[in-house]
Amino acid sequence: MTRYRGYLIDLDGTLYRGREVIPSGLEFVRRLEELGIPYLFFTNNSSRRPDQVAEKLRTFGYAAEGSQVVTSAVATAQHLKRDPEVSSVYAIGENGLITALHEAGLDWREDRPDAVIVGIDRGFHYEKMKTACLAIRAGARFFGTNGDLVLPTEEGLTPGNGSLCTGIASATGVDPVFIGKPEPPILEFALQRLGTSRSETLIVGDNLSTDILAGVKGGVDSLLVFSGVTTPEESRRSSIQATHTVDDLKDWDFI
Amino acid sequence: MTRYRGYLIDLDGTLYRGREVIPSGLEFVRRLEELGIPYLFFTNNSSRRPDQVAEKLRTFGYAAEGSQVVTSAVATAQHLKRDPEVSSVYAIGENGLITALHEAGLDWREDRPDAVIVGIDRGFHYEKMKTACLAIRAGARFFGTNGDLVLPTEEGLTPGNGSLCTGIASATGVDPVFIGKPEPPILEFALQRLGTSRSETLIVGDNLSTDILAGVKGGVDSLLVFSGVTTPEESRRSSIQATHTVDDLKDWDFI
Repeated sequence: MTRYRGYLIDLDGTLYRGREVIPSGLEFVRRLEELGIPYLFFTNNSSRRPDQVAEKLRTFGYAAEGSQVVTSAVATAQHLKRDPEVSSVYAIGENGLITALHEAGLDWREDRPDAVIVGIDRGFHYEKMKTACLAIRAGARFFGTNGDLVLPTEEGLTPGNGSLCTGIASATGVDPVFIGKPEPPILEFALQRLGTSRSETLIVGDNLSTDILAGVKGGVDSLLVFSGVTTPEESRRSSIQATHTVDDLKDWDFI
Repeated sequence: MTRYRGYLIDLDGTLYRGREVIPSGLEFVRRLEELGIPYLFFTNNSSRRPDQVAEKLRTFGYAAEGSQVVTSAVATAQHLKRDPEVSSVYAIGENGLITALHEAGLDWREDRPDAVIVGIDRGFHYEKMKTACLAIRAGARFFGTNGDLVLPTEEGLTPGNGSLCTGIASATGVDPVFIGKPEPPILEFALQRLGTSRSETLIVGDNLSTDILAGVKGGVDSLLVFSGVTTPEESRRSSIQATHTVDDLKDWDFI
């Protein structure tokens, strides 16, 4: 087996489940540290800033810093920053997205922005949807931080960002470009940040249709762990196949 | 030409356009009165109560009463009232829908209602969407007053009820049953209210994909008037064909 020189690690379902840490996740990250292997935390969450994600990880016992966290919000903002056709944006989203767009130096405009960006927003309402739709109809490009249709919560499966985007797509006839997993842009951004090549890098996650598909689409090896969304049965039947699978991260052999 | 014994008349684009009356619409309704032909105002609007719709029509000069107005909200509420499996509802909507559901004697429940009903709601927000999604995932049936994806306003094409429904459908994997035009339930309800048979009735409207398609699906003749959404060119190219077409309602010969 290749020794991977860089790891991109999913969070919920991989390192913790809801409010509970996954102990073998702690051990997994500790081993990476011992071996001196670079890694990043790699999440579709766009609601929190990287420092807030790191803070949450520290409450579980992970020695995380904001600079080690790649969110779909930051990946989106950086993607737009490099786009010569985008200098002004209107966004629907929470703190993580709004801060990332601001830090990327993008101007905020409700009227005729160059791009509309939609991330999960528990403060979503009709006026925001209308502003986004009118801007897109006036020619703004339409981006979604990530396409997840649902958000697992303690109350059950609640609407995810993908479902907010579907409504706007219906009202405009324009489909969004998604940045987060499984789409390539977030992986490009993370690889650049991590500094390893595609063939040296491993994506680790619990979700076949986001984490593992990101690897398949991006030509990066993947490790599927059965501690979250995807079951071994679903994995066997799927057309999407991880490079490696383990029942638990403690089963992973780093060398 | 058959003399029709009952008319179902669309509003926006047929009897008025935005804030302007269509004068030949006034003359058209006056002729129906003179000839003693029963008619109803027949609209997908679910935001207003029938008496409010009638009041608006009177400001344009139409001698309308609430009892002559069939809205998608009232048709939905009456449809559910007759469904033995539905006694409690959770709804997203405005005054017209909420009042209609209340008048139909349906109980309001956020937790485990028998049905979720979605109508246009300019006060739509994430918590309402979440409540609807959790209820549908818990087994509630999902109804939409109408499937219009956009709402023409003075600001432009803003999100219509169909687009709110699309978001909820994405987040639940359940598609709504629509009651309004072009679906059959609103036509059933209107025919019953009007008291005429299918073959004696004429649907009048400006929109091929709602008014005229309702006629096609329901086996009722239709008159397409080119005073609103659909152009003569679109009509010629479409697979949906009205029984009759006129450029202006003044061109219609009642006898």
